[in-house]
Amino acid sequence: MNKDPIQLDPWGTAQIDDYEKLFELFGIQPLKVVMNDIPHPHRHIRRGVMFGHRDLELVIKAVSGNTPFAVMSGIKPTGEFHLGSKMTAEELIFFQSLSEKAAAFYCMADLEAYADNGIPLEESARIAVSNLADLLALGLEPKKTYVYKQSEETRVMNLSFIFSRSVTQNMLRAIYGERNFGLYLSALVQAGDILMPQTKDFGGPKPVVVPVGADQDPHIRLCRDLARRHQTEYGFLLPSATYHKLTRSLSGSLKMSKRDPMSLLTLNDDPAIAEKKISNALTGGRETVELQRKIGGEPEKCVVYELGMFHFIEDDAYVQRIYDECVSGKRICGDCKAEHASIVSDYLKNHQRRKKSFIDQAHSLLSNQ
Amino acid sequence: MNKDPIQLDPWGTAQIDDYEKLFELFGIQPLKVVMNDIPHPHRHIRRGVMFGHRDLELVIKAVSGNTPFAVMSGIKPTGEFHLGSKMTAEELIFFQSLSEKAAAFYCMADLEAYADNGIPLEESARIAVSNLADLLALGLEPKKTYVYKQSEETRVMNLSFIFSRSVTQNMLRAIYGERNFGLYLSALVQAGDILMPQTKDFGGPKPVVVPVGADQDPHIRLCRDLARRHQTEYGFLLPSATYHKLTRSLSGSLKMSKRDPMSLLTLNDDPAIAEKKISNALTGGRETVELQRKIGGEPEKCVVYELGMFHFIEDDAYVQRIYDECVSGKRICGDCKAEHASIVSDYLKNHQRRKKSFIDQAHSLLSNQ
Repeated sequence: MNKDPIQLDPWGTAQIDDYEKLFELFGIQPLKVVMNDIPHPHRHIRRGVMFGHRDLELVIKAVSGNTPFAVMSGIKPTGEFHLGSKMTAEELIFFQSLSEKAAAFYCMADLEAYADNGIPLEESARIAVSNLADLLALGLEPKKTYVYKQSEETRVMNLSFIFSRSVTQNMLRAIYGERNFGLYLSALVQAGDILMPQTKDFGGPKPVVVPVGADQDPHIRLCRDLARRHQTEYGFLLPSATYHKLTRSLSGSLKMSKRDPMSLLTLNDDPAIAEKKISNALTGGRETVELQRKIGGEPEKCVVYELGMFHFIEDDAYVQRIYDECVSGKRICGDCKAEHASIVSDYLKNHQRRKKSFIDQAHSLLSNQ
Repeated sequence: MNKDPIQLDPWGTAQIDDYEKLFELFGIQPLKVVMNDIPHPHRHIRRGVMFGHRDLELVIKAVSGNTPFAVMSGIKPTGEFHLGSKMTAEELIFFQSLSEKAAAFYCMADLEAYADNGIPLEESARIAVSNLADLLALGLEPKKTYVYKQSEETRVMNLSFIFSRSVTQNMLRAIYGERNFGLYLSALVQAGDILMPQTKDFGGPKPVVVPVGADQDPHIRLCRDLARRHQTEYGFLLPSATYHKLTRSLSGSLKMSKRDPMSLLTLNDDPAIAEKKISNALTGGRETVELQRKIGGEPEKCVVYELGMFHFIEDDAYVQRIYDECVSGKRICGDCKAEHASIVSDYLKNHQRRKKSFIDQAHSLLSNQ
């Protein structure tokens, strides 16, 4: 792999220091320019967590013109929804909420869960029910949603087979570096996922937006390239995408990884344990309380601040107050952690209660496909 | 590609001069050693047209022990059955006929027909019905057969996805040379086709024989390698294979190609046109009749002789007589062509009449899957 730190690796644990560079390097557009055209922008948008896009204008136009569009995402059903999955899920649900004509597509990548993590399909089927119940509890509207299992959706597999004839090893190497055949194939299958909503069975060509973490951009670029190559055949519009910053683990390093459960919050965590995890999290605090009172903390470095700002506090003024109190030295880490722990704990209790009521529906949605 | 003439190219137009070399180079076993254990051997076996195998002992044992085994083949439904397709089909049917416990699997590779030849799925679906009617007319027993379309068989696609994680670019390059991603994927999908009969849905591990032309051996080697890599997971037996010599075009060059219809016999040819094609075919005749009377012809070089020997004459003594008469100078090409043209014409008339009566059944077999 290229050692340039800005090389995006969709399969790695990326740390991106300077998101602005992506504008220049990969042609991602700043979201700021179009965000005023988005009705009731989501907190990710208002706060710059979602910072970039490609061709989102197509979707904005579909919203204002009341014409059909789709929003696409998915998950590898290997375990409980963590905060990274929650971010993408909320963005999916946000775009779906923008219009009666918005269809959400959601892929349960059970084959990948088997191939990568050795999870048998019967087990990932149970996990998928739990994941879908999370989505419903977060606000997914089932009547405007098509959920499918990767192992059962021939349309996606057929698209990826067809696409395989128009990629070259050079294209794949240029985008991903030298990788194993299996990862290349996964990328083609994802292109199939993203372009399926534009096929005849789903009403033909339309704008489709894929909300992703910044590290997933290589998949978007490959998919747009394939859409272009198969445009005369299928009439594909190039898919749109939005990009959000990566959520760090509670220890502050890398992106969320399922490998280290104590540094990772999931929506199914026991609220008491979640509080404990937060009490151990990395902050932007100074070496001593005295110093912090004097020169203030560094919320930009603080995972606890990020928890509220990215994930759990809806009220912009409240987030601003936390920030101001921190940098002015008025707010001390111990209190701040306790405050966030309580917010997160309440959120989880509420979410888990709601989620329970959606399990049956999730089950029937996944068996009816 | 390697320029060594013995490099096997499953996607090319191969000419293999010395089949014996394949024993040494690739570990294909001579069929002679086991042929006496095969009950009522097919004319391809008796005449050395089928000349090699891998692990056919497993199948022979299943026949004598009356235990389940499978035989697998398929076609890319792009046009009418030509003599190459007929060879493989007859071998499939022969192995199926060996036991009540023999199941035949047949793949209609409609996605390949689309990706390679631009034939839409609706059109290849019609062609597949015609191809299947040919198979039934040739003797395929529908009750012991599973026919499927590549675009609809998730089990095969899922296997190939799983296999994709255990191949490396180096493995693929070593077997096929540097190829496009799409051809590599096709090879994995074929491995899925060959190994599906051993999955749980079809009763689990069992011997499976794949009768192929000698140029297809790379696919067999890849598939056996994948079976080995996934043995603990699925309990796969390494698939068996048999190898036949390639049918030349009527002009004597290369293997049968659908690109030159006048040099290619199909089972749907108008018998009168087939006779005409044969009258133009390459023979092993001498420059003049006088010379031929004196030193005899060369049946080894003669496509007309091959037509009878490979494809259309069941009676060994009759084939022997033709051979003897040719080499002794007793038989002259003009008469011999007329004799073969009449045999082929009768065969086609009879086949086409039988085929008609199987169209409805073929249609319903392909829509019921």
